[in-house]
Order: sequence, then C-alpha cells, then structure tokens
Amino acid sequence: MKDAMRINFASDNAAPVCPELMQAIQTENTGPALGYGNDDTTRRMEQSFTDLFGCDLKAYPVATGTAANVLGLSMMTPPYGSVYCHELSHIQLDECGAPEFFTDGAKLALLEGGNGKITAPDLEAALAVSGRGVVHHVQPAAISLTQVTECGTLYEPDEISAISEVARRHGLGVHMDGARLANSVAALGCSVADITWKAGVDVLSFGGTKNGAMSVEAVIFFDQAKAAEFEFRRKRGAHLFSKLRYLSAQLEAYLKNDLWLGLAAHANAMAQRLSEGLQAQGNHHLHYPTQANIVFVTLSVPVIEKLERAGFLFYVMGPREEGQVRLVTSWNTTEEEVNLFLSHVGS
Amino acid sequence: MKDAMRINFASDNAAPVCPELMQAIQTENTGPALGYGNDDTTRRMEQSFTDLFGCDLKAYPVATGTAANVLGLSMMTPPYGSVYCHELSHIQLDECGAPEFFTDGAKLALLEGGNGKITAPDLEAALAVSGRGVVHHVQPAAISLTQVTECGTLYEPDEISAISEVARRHGLGVHMDGARLANSVAALGCSVADITWKAGVDVLSFGGTKNGAMSVEAVIFFDQAKAAEFEFRRKRGAHLFSKLRYLSAQLEAYLKNDLWLGLAAHANAMAQRLSEGLQAQGNHHLHYPTQANIVFVTLSVPVIEKLERAGFLFYVMGPREEGQVRLVTSWNTTEEEVNLFLSHVGS
Amino acid sequence: MKDAMRINFASDNAAPVCPELMQAIQTENTGPALGYGNDDTTRRMEQSFTDLFGCDLKAYPVATGTAANVLGLSMMTPPYGSVYCHELSHIQLDECGAPEFFTDGAKLALLEGGNGKITAPDLEAALAVSGRGVVHHVQPAAISLTQVTECGTLYEPDEISAISEVARRHGLGVHMDGARLANSVAALGCSVADITWKAGVDVLSFGGTKNGAMSVEAVIFFDQAKAAEFEFRRKRGAHLFSKLRYLSAQLEAYLKNDLWLGLAAHANAMAQRLSEGLQAQGNHHLHYPTQANIVFVTLSVPVIEKLERAGFLFYVMGPREEGQVRLVTSWNTTEEEVNLFLSHVGS
Amino acid sequence: MKDAMRINFASDNAAPVCPELMQAIQTENTGPALGYGNDDTTRRMEQSFTDLFGCDLKAYPVATGTAANVLGLSMMTPPYGSVYCHELSHIQLDECGAPEFFTDGAKLALLEGGNGKITAPDLEAALAVSGRGVVHHVQPAAISLTQVTECGTLYEPDEISAISEVARRHGLGVHMDGARLANSVAALGCSVADITWKAGVDVLSFGGTKNGAMSVEAVIFFDQAKAAEFEFRRKRGAHLFSKLRYLSAQLEAYLKNDLWLGLAAHANAMAQRLSEGLQAQGNHHLHYPTQANIVFVTLSVPVIEKLERAGFLFYVMGPREEGQVRLVTSWNTTEEEVNLFLSHVGS
Repeated sequence: MKDAMRINFASDNAAPVCPELMQAIQTENTGPALGYGNDDTTRRMEQSFTDLFGCDLKAYPVATGTAANVLGLSMMTPPYGSVYCHELSHIQLDECGAPEFFTDGAKLALLEGGNGKITAPDLEAALAVSGRGVVHHVQPAAISLTQVTECGTLYEPDEISAISEVARRHGLGVHMDGARLANSVAALGCSVADITWKAGVDVLSFGGTKNGAMSVEAVIFFDQAKAAEFEFRRKRGAHLFSKLRYLSAQLEAYLKNDLWLGLAAHANAMAQRLSEGLQAQGNHHLHYPTQANIVFVTLSVPVIEKLERAGFLFYVMGPREEGQVRLVTSWNTTEEEVNLFLSHVGS
Repeated sequence: MKDAMRINFASDNAAPVCPELMQAIQTENTGPALGYGNDDTTRRMEQSFTDLFGCDLKAYPVATGTAANVLGLSMMTPPYGSVYCHELSHIQLDECGAPEFFTDGAKLALLEGGNGKITAPDLEAALAVSGRGVVHHVQPAAISLTQVTECGTLYEPDEISAISEVARRHGLGVHMDGARLANSVAALGCSVADITWKAGVDVLSFGGTKNGAMSVEAVIFFDQAKAAEFEFRRKRGAHLFSKLRYLSAQLEAYLKNDLWLGLAAHANAMAQRLSEGLQAQGNHHLHYPTQANIVFVTLSVPVIEKLERAGFLFYVMGPREEGQVRLVTSWNTTEEEVNLFLSHVGS
Repeated sequence: MKDAMRINFASDNAAPVCPELMQAIQTENTGPALGYGNDDTTRRMEQSFTDLFGCDLKAYPVATGTAANVLGLSMMTPPYGSVYCHELSHIQLDECGAPEFFTDGAKLALLEGGNGKITAPDLEAALAVSGRGVVHHVQPAAISLTQVTECGTLYEPDEISAISEVARRHGLGVHMDGARLANSVAALGCSVADITWKAGVDVLSFGGTKNGAMSVEAVIFFDQAKAAEFEFRRKRGAHLFSKLRYLSAQLEAYLKNDLWLGLAAHANAMAQRLSEGLQAQGNHHLHYPTQANIVFVTLSVPVIEKLERAGFLFYVMGPREEGQVRLVTSWNTTEEEVNLFLSHVGS
Repeated sequence: MKDAMRINFASDNAAPVCPELMQAIQTENTGPALGYGNDDTTRRMEQSFTDLFGCDLKAYPVATGTAANVLGLSMMTPPYGSVYCHELSHIQLDECGAPEFFTDGAKLALLEGGNGKITAPDLEAALAVSGRGVVHHVQPAAISLTQVTECGTLYEPDEISAISEVARRHGLGVHMDGARLANSVAALGCSVADITWKAGVDVLSFGGTKNGAMSVEAVIFFDQAKAAEFEFRRKRGAHLFSKLRYLSAQLEAYLKNDLWLGLAAHANAMAQRLSEGLQAQGNHHLHYPTQANIVFVTLSVPVIEKLERAGFLFYVMGPREEGQVRLVTSWNTTEEEVNLFLSHVGS
C-alpha cells in the first residue's frame, strides 16, 4: 500500500501519523507506568484540555471515533430514549448499530436539513410531536450534532447555540461528534469553547485520528456530573486501554503549541485550493460549499477512471454512473498532489 | 511516572513497548493506506498467523484483551446462553460486565478448581445439571479457558483436550483467553497449535499487550464459519480501527523470528529467578507453583512497606494485613531488578 | 369507567371481552394443569392454527401485541441488523423501543408510502443503497408489514407477494404485524393463508386482543426452523405464562366456527356505516379509504367538543386545532352507537 | 389435563383460578374502558395496595413473576452493576437470563446460605471484596431476597431488616421476590408492611398467580422516585397490557377482605398437614423445615412410581434415583388429597 504513486484523497484517516505525534509516542516509551490511566501523562493530558477549553472538564481518551460517539451518547440516553440527529450523520449511517448497542437499544430520530445540517426550528418541530411523557413512545433524550458535518460544511456558533437552546428547553443533552472538530475551529477562526461548551454542548467527541493521530479521540464532559459513570461504561465497552498513556501522549502533543489547529488549517487550505481549482475549470458541479477539508464534486465516469488509473485514492458515493466523488484532504496533503489531481481532471 | 527508581512488578502491561514493535510502528508510518483493514500490512499479518498455526484461520486485531475476549465469546453465545469459566477468570472478575454486554446478556457459569484451573470432570458435572433444553434455564453455549491462568499456572495440552472433548460432546464452543499465551507456549515448550486448535479451541484471544506490544491482541477463529459475522460485531462494538495497519504492523513484527516467544521466555525466566530466590530465603509462602511470569507470595506488612518505599510497583491482593502479593515479570524485567527485589525482601 | 353513557370509538382494545371467549376462560377453569404450555388446551390450540392455515406451523400465545411483534422480529434480526418498516408502523411509533430492546439493538429502517403502505419498488430502492456486506452499515435482515395498516387500509395479496419477493431476493425475513389481521381477512374475503404464508410471510403476529379477546396474540412461525430458539427468547422476555392455558383457551375459542372472522366482519361493517354516514353528510374529509374498522376524519373543534361532552370516546391525532379524529369500531359497536355518533356530528 | 384423577402437588401455579377472582374478571367485563391502565379499576387497585401497606406507593400489574422481578431489578441496577442473590434463587436458576436481559447485562452475584436464605454477615463479607468504585469490577447495585424462599422457608422480619441495613450502608437497593409473599405473611402472622417497607424493602414483586390468580403480579415501589421510569421500562419490555383492567380487577379482588391471606393460610395448612403426616410415618427425610406451602422430602423410587401411576402430579428434583421430591400445596388443595397422598406413601 505504501506505493509512492498512490495519492490519498480517500479519507483523512488514510493519512499516516504526523511526526510530532510519532515522536510523542516514542518519548513516552521509557520505563514503566501503571496501567489504565493511572499515569502522569494522562493527568497532564487532561490538564491540557482544561487549559484549552478554559473550564472544568473531564477528558477520556478512546481509540475510535465511533467509541467516542457512542460512549458519550450512552451517558445521555436511557434505553427507552431517542437521539435526534441528521439523517446523514455518522452515527446513523456508518457505525453499524453501535449507538443502539451502547445505549442498550435507544432509537435514532432522524432530521433532514440542507448541507448536512440540523436547524433549531426543525428540531423544535420534531420535539413537538415526539410524545414526551407518553409511555408508548421513546423519550427524547439527546441531540447529536456533527462538526464538521458529513457534507464538509460548518455550523456557525450561533446555529449551535440556537439548537442547544431548544434542547435545553426540552430536557435534551447536547452531543457533538467532533471527529473533524479541528478543521471547524481552524476554518471558523473562533475559539474551540465558542462552538462547544459556550454554545451549550454537554459531551464532545474531540477527534484526533483524522488529523494526524494514530488512533485517539477524547470524550470531553463539560458537565462533570454526567461523567460519573463514564469510566464504568468505557471499561464495560472494552475501551479502557491498559497502556492508556500512549493515547494520552498523542493527545498531549496534539494540543501543544496548537499543533492540532495547524494541521487542520493546512488540510482546509488544500481543500480550498482543490475546490477553487475545480471551479476554475468551469464545468464541475460542487454539491456543497467547501468549508473545511472535504470537497464533493460530480465528475464524468471517464475522468474518474483516468484518476483511478493514475493512482489517486478517493470514494465514489452512490451509483458510479452518477459520478459523485468525495475528496478529502489531510494534514499531509501537498500542493503538488492537489495540482496533479487538478491537472488530471482538467486535461 | 517515568521514574528511574520505579521498578515494575505490578503488571506486564505496565512495561513499555519493546523496541522491535516500536520500530514496526515507525516503519508502517510512510504514505497513505486505506483504512479499516483494507491494507497490505493487515493482509500480511493474517498470513503470518496462518503460517504460525499451520491451519486456515481468520485473525482480527483489536486493541484490548477485554475486547478480544468478549467479541470472541459473542460469536459463540446466544443472549439466553451461558459461558462456563473459572470463578477467578478475567472475564468474571475484571471486565466490568463486558462479557454480559457483548453477548447481549448471557450469563457466566462459574466453576471452581485448584490453581485457577477448570477440570474436565467438573465441567461434565456442571453440564449434567444445567437444564439443557429446558426453557427456564440459560443454555450452555461455551467454555472459556485462560492460558496462562490468573494464578500464573498452566494447562497441559491434554488437560485442554479433555475439557474440549466434554465441550464438544455437549455442543459448547471452546474459547481461550490467551492474554499471556506466549508465556504458556514458551513455558510448555510445545507448539502453539498443540494448546489451541489441535486441543479443540475454536476461538482464541492471542495476547500482545502484556508481552511488549503497545495495545494489540488478535482474535483468531480456527472455525472460519464462526467468523462470518465477527466483522459486524467488531464494528458495532466500536473496535474497528480506521488506522488498523498500526495494530497489524505490531502483530506482524511480534510473530517475526519468534520474537513473541523470546520476550515471553525472558519474562518467565525472571519469574523463575524471583520465585526461586524467594523460596531460597526459606520463610515465604508461595500460593501457586510458578509456571509462567507471575509469582504469588505472602509477605509481612513491614516488608511490603519497605518495598513500596524503595519504589517497587506491585499489587497486594485482598486485605493488606494478609500480605498476599502478586509479582509479575515482563519482557524488560532485568536480573538486577529481581536481585534488588530479593535483597529488599530478604534483608 | 363502566359508564353507560360512554360510547367507545377510541380503540378496539377499549372494548370488553366477547362472551364466547369469556366462556372459554371459565370452561378452562376446572382442575389442575401443568404450567408453561405443557397442557392439553395449548396442544389443541396449536392444532387449530394448523388446521386454519393448512400448513405445518408453530403457534405461541403471548399477551400483548408488542410482545408478539418484537419476539417475532428478534428471531429474524441480528443485533447489527435492520428491520424495514413503514414510518407510521406500530413498531416504530408505539412500542417505546421494544423492537430495539428485543433485537438487542437492531435498527428500524423507515419507508414512506401512501395510505400507510410500503411498496415493493420502494423496498427494492432502499435495499439497493443499504450497504449490504459493508461493515460500517447495519445489515438488512427483515421487512415488517402491518395488516390492517395503521391508516386502516389493506394490502392486497399480490402486494404482499411482491414485497416478499423483493425480501426473499435480498435475504430478508418477512414479518407481518397482524394485530387486526382478522379485520383484513374479513374485508378481503380471501383465506388467511393467501395473505400470510402463501404470500411469503415467515412470522406472523396473529392478533386477538383488539377483536374480542382479553389479552392474547399468537406468534405463528411458518418456517419452523426459525422457531427453534423462540421458546428461550419468550421466557427470557418474561412472556411465558405459567397458566398459559387461559391464553390458549381464548385462542382456541377464537378460531372455533370462524368466530374471529364474524367479530371482525361486524366491526368492519360498523366502520363502513360510519364512513358512509360521514360522507353522506357531505363536508367531512376522510384521510384514507375506509377498508377495515378504522375511520380517519377531520372534524371541527366545536364538533369534537360536543362529541366529547356527549360521552363519546375517541382520539384526536396531532394538534387539536387541526381536528384529525381517529374512530375505531369493534366487535361490540352497535348500529345505534354509530347512528348516535353521526347524529351528533351532523346536527 | 382436566382429569379428575390428577391431584396436583406439582406447583401452586398448576392450580386453577379461585372463584372470587374469576368473578372479578366477569364483573369487570361490562362496557368499554380506556386502555393501558387509564381506567377506574386500575386506580382503585392502586388505592387498595396503599391501604394494605399503609404508606404511599406505586403499584403496577404485570402478568408473570419473572416480569415483576426483572422489571423491578432493572430500576435498581445499571448495566455495569450486580445484583446479590441466593444461589438457589428463581432469578438465578429459573428465568432463562431475563434479569440479565432487562438490566441490559448486569451480573448476578451469588451467595450461599442454609435453607435457601441469605444472611446479613455473608452479604457484608461479599460486599467487602466487591471492588466498589474500581473500574474493572461490576458495581454492587441491589440485593434480591425471596420470601417464601425456593426451599419453602421464611425470613423473619428482623432477618430482612438486618440484610437491608447492610444494603443501605453500601448503597444497594433492596428487592423482594414475593411470588409467594401471601404464604409468608399468613405463616408469620405479621403485617405485610413488617416484612417489606418497614424492613427496608424498596421494590416488591407481590405475587398473585401462585395463590389463585389467573396471571397477575404487582410490582410495588415504596420509593416512588424509583418508579419514575418504570412505566417506560414496562412498555419497552412489552409488558403493558391494553386491557390492563382485567389484571387490576384480579388484584383488587385478591386484596379485598384479606382473600389473599385466607387462600395462602389454607395452602400453608395443607403443607403442614402433609409434612406432619410424612414425619409421622417415621422414615422420611425432610430437607427443610416446612414453614409455608412447600415440602421437600426424600422418597424411594418405587414409592415415586406408585404415586405417579396413581395420578399425583409433583416434581422430582435432581437425579431421579436420589428421590428428592418437591410437593407444593395451593389454595385448592384439599385434606382429602393430602390424606390420599399420605396413604399412598405410607402403604
């Protein structure tokens, strides 16, 4: 697979680990440390998150984005509850029933919405007919937002606040799937607090793997009371690592000197370059505005085949003949790679 | 925690990653690779296991021993089933209900037995009164053996075969928790096939983390038909890594040139040295024969306190005043560390 | 509640037990009988179903429609599976997550469709994008049809066959929620086999409670192999009655001399009378064709309030000001009650 | 099965419904009533329980003893929790994993104890090594007591209080499986409050089916806060009856004029007569003191066979050649039946 001719636009999780995090893993690898998070690195890691967000919090490393999402949701949702989410969300489409499993059988309640985004009025309308308090119906328990969305678009801080306000009024917890949170913060130019706890988010999946880490996400609880039983649920889910320090070391290095934002800003810039290049070629349809590190574009089948032969990695979404292509840039995408792609498309 | 004064007898999972595996991780870290196991390293890893065991198999990397155990058991046990296991087993005592979670509510049926070992006659007797076919009772579905046991003892190949024969006759699947399988193979001097598929094991948790890996175990299915739905269960359990190749790379390096056996043999030798040293001091009670890399010994409270002050890491099991100490050696335990421990105990 | 002034159009399950079934319960009540279905009445009941359907089958009494549905579905759907159903179906809207609970976390995949009905092409289209075999996605496992639908409409036999044919081709089991199956058979004038096993149904919830029984439904397995583990799942769900014979006695009497069809035909006729009476009054909007024993009509708020004051029981669906009224007739609805209702509406 | 020659000592749930409850069912059967417990009879039934216990409470009818037990336990036990119970308890041996299912995977922690009874010191000792607060271990959440025990023996009020006191100190909820609670109250001559809420019980399964009802138990919550989500869990478990009033009517009649105690006192007296008769014959070994309505005795195989040929229904526990016979009397056991049994044994 390590073929020099292969150029990755398939996914940001197909990229390798960035050098700073690889170095952090190595640095961690000296001497013994008690397992299961009872180590100094894990303590420092949590402090780094506290400093970053500027509030009291609990931060728990896990190794997959799905684990972060579903363990977080399991803290907010009883088995007879429901989680409102966009119909295109990762928890609905791409986690093979993990949300239902970890919530012991709760239901996902799907919302539509342009550009992969839920709106506050739509949530309000759905809750109005949810049957709150009526024993025949699952009970609304949480709302899950994805930032960056599956469409590569962004929620503005005030959009998140508006949704959270509806949630709060109806007694729902607010979860954010932030597998690409770094890309959103870099793009919005806000503070990470502005789109999380200051906008009403209770539990956050803070992604690392898609932005240069080996395999690490953090589940962040801004309401520490809600974290009380998390540790038991993580262990019960078989997601407590004995050598947790290697996850913590990655997260610590990831936050240090805003490395996470730098990596994401680069990926965003590459997507912007790609998007603008495609638009400059004139005849390509972009499905969504390019706001982070993902570009959705329609290409002809011959172009798709040419790109594949040339060694570019990417996904065709839906029927191949419709030519809907998803292009994801990452921390190590280069301008040369983007240029090469554009030249293949445009030639 | 990386305190030079700290000497680890607490657990083999408190040891760092061995250099060969750290190198394998680095070597893997060049260029992109498709995620979720669709990479060359993962394919090579599975071939390495096929070569090692000398039979067709499926090998799936996961990151925790608990995940390996409970995902394996979930393939063998319906929700109304039961898993027979030793009352001291890890799945019963140390996994916070993960077996019940992943089997959707199956029951663990506990067996006693000296030195942490189940016997075939005891299993036979328990199955005789299990209520097979009677709707009021959970239905026997699997037996889980631990090799090395929680007491640091070993099953001989013929003991495993005898248990498997009972299981087979009663329609039970056979699972082996091999978190320390390497230590058992190194100690028994047999082939790994002799104590697994040739002795009737269907599904194996093949441990890496306690023997020098960062965080990786393999779930091995010798009956590939039983693996059919494993991939969905792994994903649903949030245990499918996008960057799976970094787990696969560790496993590949772990098997190469019998590295896994060399690391384990060293740990075993250090435990033997420790055990013999304690016995030579005359007045210490060993709870179990030292057959692998764990020593259980009774020490006086003043000695325990002296050792703790000197920076030795270890666990006191049960009430402190009873002085039951567990000492675990690992791939990087040194003769000097053992000598130093013995001199503190004996002085 | 037993208020002579109260006239029930609220639900067919608000009606009392019909005399023949009450008599059957009394007749059963002499002498002892072994519990849990090991009694003669239960054996006779199963034979009655075999005779009715004209094929080998297994018939299991349970006490609620939800239990019948979700236990049936649990036999067809793995925890990482999905059940396709109409977005208005009872299993989606009115069972408080019981399907997710009994399937250990499977997902309901919702289909739209006029008059509360799924179409074969829509199912086909949904399955085409379901991600069969891809580990990230839940796996299509079953289709659930409701006959009579929640809208009071009917599937024709060939519509059911067409859906089953799609299901068969994609490896899905076919479940039918027949809480009001009697009403459909009475209305269609077909045999019950024509809309069940002959049309491809594998597992059937055969309703009794809404048509004159006290509390009993039968789960019918036409594919007896699929029944193999049902008995364990029923017990595990706490739905195996010790005094099961009182449920069986009801079902036996229900089938005898086509009592079930007679009761349903009467209810249907009353709904038809009601529907025609409303239409004759000219200015009422019926939401769906009246094909069984349910009428959906829009009434003005003043009329609704007049009816409520007069002691009529019925439900207003959705916001009261929209005036969407659901009227359900039952085995003991009288022409006088219908006439009285119509006169209140029309005056 | 309604064979005049069959005399039931098999189980109190093999007896028919007592006339007063059959009458109550008939009396209920006039006119419509809103479903799912929104009826007057259900309200009166709850008031009857409030009057009986002399305290505020919530009372929920369900149809099986298993449903009562496991729904009650599900309110006290998180999925990573454990329920302490006797190793012979019904929830451990006879509910096919329903406790694990309804608690979403909690573990039963087994206690030994003579005559089927847990002792406070044994519970204290077990909790001392339970690993409270340690993430690797399931967390103690509840204790479940059975009154009358599976051995036909009784807890004295002060024994229950002592156990509850330990539970309270360790933060455990107290559940009582009272499938035969009536027999215990009749035998102890205390008030029902004395062995339930006044002795520290939080949630009670109040049995009816084994003492003359058709199929009804009540789940009683003395701590109403713990009942808050019960209604959703009952519906999700498919245990909410639409025609709930027929269950409520039975319970109301059961409590009226102390019918429940009269029925139980009769059954107890018959067991006493049987036990004394067996002892008077001199050579029979009783396994437990006869304190309620169950007698355990060893009989020779020829005697067992003679009894079976004569049409007596009873269970042989364990291997037939050991001759351990369980005899259960019920509300309709007669002196003649007991005499006839004794004459067959003694002849």
